[in-house]
Amino acid sequence: NKTYRIAVIPGDGIGKEVMPEGLRAVQAAADKFGIGLELTHIDWASCDYWQAHGKMMPDDWKAQLQGMDAIFFGAVGWPATVPDHVSLWGSLLKFRREFDQYINLRPVRLFEGVPCPLAGRKAGDIDFFVVRENTEGEYTNLGGRIFEGTEREIVIQESVFSRHGTERVLKFAFELAQSRPRKKLTVATKSNGIAVSMPWWDERADEIGRSYPEVAADKQHIDILSARFVLQPDRFDVVVASNLFGDILSDLGPACTGTIGLAPSANLDPERRFPSLFEPVHGSAPDIYGQNIANPVAMIWSGALMLDFLTHGQGAGRQAHDAIVAAIETVLREGPRTRDLGGQADTTEMGKAVAALI
Amino acid sequence: NKTYRIAVIPGDGIGKEVMPEGLRAVQAAADKFGIGLELTHIDWASCDYWQAHGKMMPDDWKAQLQGMDAIFFGAVGWPATVPDHVSLWGSLLKFRREFDQYINLRPVRLFEGVPCPLAGRKAGDIDFFVVRENTEGEYTNLGGRIFEGTEREIVIQESVFSRHGTERVLKFAFELAQSRPRKKLTVATKSNGIAVSMPWWDERADEIGRSYPEVAADKQHIDILSARFVLQPDRFDVVVASNLFGDILSDLGPACTGTIGLAPSANLDPERRFPSLFEPVHGSAPDIYGQNIANPVAMIWSGALMLDFLTHGQGAGRQAHDAIVAAIETVLREGPRTRDLGGQADTTEMGKAVAALI
Ligand SMILES: CC(C)[C@H](C(=O)O)[C@@H](O)C(=O)O
Ligand SMILES: CC(C)[C@H](C(=O)O)[C@@H](O)C(=O)O
Repeated sequence: NKTYRIAVIPGDGIGKEVMPEGLRAVQAAADKFGIGLELTHIDWASCDYWQAHGKMMPDDWKAQLQGMDAIFFGAVGWPATVPDHVSLWGSLLKFRREFDQYINLRPVRLFEGVPCPLAGRKAGDIDFFVVRENTEGEYTNLGGRIFEGTEREIVIQESVFSRHGTERVLKFAFELAQSRPRKKLTVATKSNGIAVSMPWWDERADEIGRSYPEVAADKQHIDILSARFVLQPDRFDVVVASNLFGDILSDLGPACTGTIGLAPSANLDPERRFPSLFEPVHGSAPDIYGQNIANPVAMIWSGALMLDFLTHGQGAGRQAHDAIVAAIETVLREGPRTRDLGGQADTTEMGKAVAALI
Repeated sequence: NKTYRIAVIPGDGIGKEVMPEGLRAVQAAADKFGIGLELTHIDWASCDYWQAHGKMMPDDWKAQLQGMDAIFFGAVGWPATVPDHVSLWGSLLKFRREFDQYINLRPVRLFEGVPCPLAGRKAGDIDFFVVRENTEGEYTNLGGRIFEGTEREIVIQESVFSRHGTERVLKFAFELAQSRPRKKLTVATKSNGIAVSMPWWDERADEIGRSYPEVAADKQHIDILSARFVLQPDRFDVVVASNLFGDILSDLGPACTGTIGLAPSANLDPERRFPSLFEPVHGSAPDIYGQNIANPVAMIWSGALMLDFLTHGQGAGRQAHDAIVAAIETVLREGPRTRDLGGQADTTEMGKAVAALI
């Protein structure tokens, strides 16, 4: 029986508070279904580390992580001491890019017991995936400033889309849509305004789509698509988007289901050349850190996605995933719940309740 | 008494259906308050024109429009015959840029009688402005394709931010926030991911903000900001954003108030060197064109913004604006309403009802 090696990186802020609950649930499920885990606790990839060392990670970070089967990740960012672009580009965004985690898979689901900000929606009405490109596109540090500090100053920011990077995320999304009962794919675009990359993105989507005649694919501009997340969230099945658009949609989608405190994500290298990374969508949330009130569900659910991925969605890992999700469903329905869900429980109480049910 | 010269451009799709209702209301209010209007009806800047002439506008479009006091604009886009980036860059986006309409001002308001997709929100709870940069940023056709058609293909898309362009929109937004009772400004950013332009945008906001100590300004990343539009829309007062982020937020905001069929916009050159342009936020909506079911309120409300701007927010123009908005409020509350609002009325019936109340 294989033992999976997991790097555990809590990071900053509420990452440090939700991580123990994520681990509690993952360990409970692993024990129950006989999955061997070897955890390596890592304190770098955090702004605390930056304060002590002037960098986010040790120089041999890649070697240290390369042998891992997965990275279980809390959140990074503490803007009071380190600017966000420094901390994120020095850790999370580096992992995504250097470990070629080109799929960011983010389920969006409305659960029973979770107060929904949308009127008249009930559990089951909202249930879709955002498939986000995770290594290129709008997230770059290419470009620069000219005539700096003068009235004439100009700043250029470059986005980079490769055929390789675009086609593989589109393929993944078409495959996922094909595997689901509704077989619907929404392709986020903005080809009417962003005149070089987005028309080309549309062409790629058309081309890849030709191999998936059963999938009903539909291109929607990001502005109206965002509006439809609010107005018709039941219409979505799989949504595929560039790095930036996926970022926006995968916060907006969870908001429409009540709270981003629930939303998990899987940063995947589907070819398994590198460790994949599993993290909540919420960030480090400095405003609520230190009170132990953060909702641990996103972290716990991310752990479920991790176990599922490790075992290729089969056997013990799939059972562990399903057991964790079932426990989440029960706790969301019956409590205890954290404050963002209208409850009184703290992070630990809610986490323990989930683990107890597993 | 000055007579204002208005270019009337219905454009495509439902632009052609809502324009008569926009004009009906504007003319009624102008007559009532003694505002002289001289309308010039223009059939170009439309995909019909493109089909006949292979271009969106005549070569002397600028000369024809330069003498106008305003452009009253429906919507452009008919993707079945002309790709969106061709039709938009050949008309609307050209106006915005060549007439330096650098402010796109978009009110977001929840009205009585409009079914709100958000649970528990009532009229008055949502009432803010999106101030969108309208001439530069992410909307460019700069960049290109290399290794085209091969596996190695790479596409670069450049965004361009100028100090001039960024500072003036920030100033406008700070001024607007300063003039409102709550004096709150939210600055949309994504400096944690988009590592060149957005950190610089944040610096500009900090710098401009120093001149407005009374304004409570707050930077929020576009992902969580989108989530908060759904979760806490009552918290916003003025939101300032780049071209792309403003585009997204000004569809999302109106969606949160029930329908983008209500949302107006003012594309302003505040210095009045060029004609400003007033248009609904909704596009040409090919899917519902031809049935006369489009909601005319966004077009009518845009007309109110136009009259207000023409007279510098004073005197007869302000009265005309207020009379139109009051008529909209009454019709939204008491009907007749179009289908997007749960009613049975067609575009003309709803438009006539508003005009009758003016
Ligand atoms: C039609 C399109 C180019 C336009 C934009 O993106 O600016 C529209 O969505 C808008 O918001 O005015
Ligand atoms: C923290 C930030 C850089 C990150 C992103 O934008 O990708 C986060 O918002 C996310 O969605 O994972």
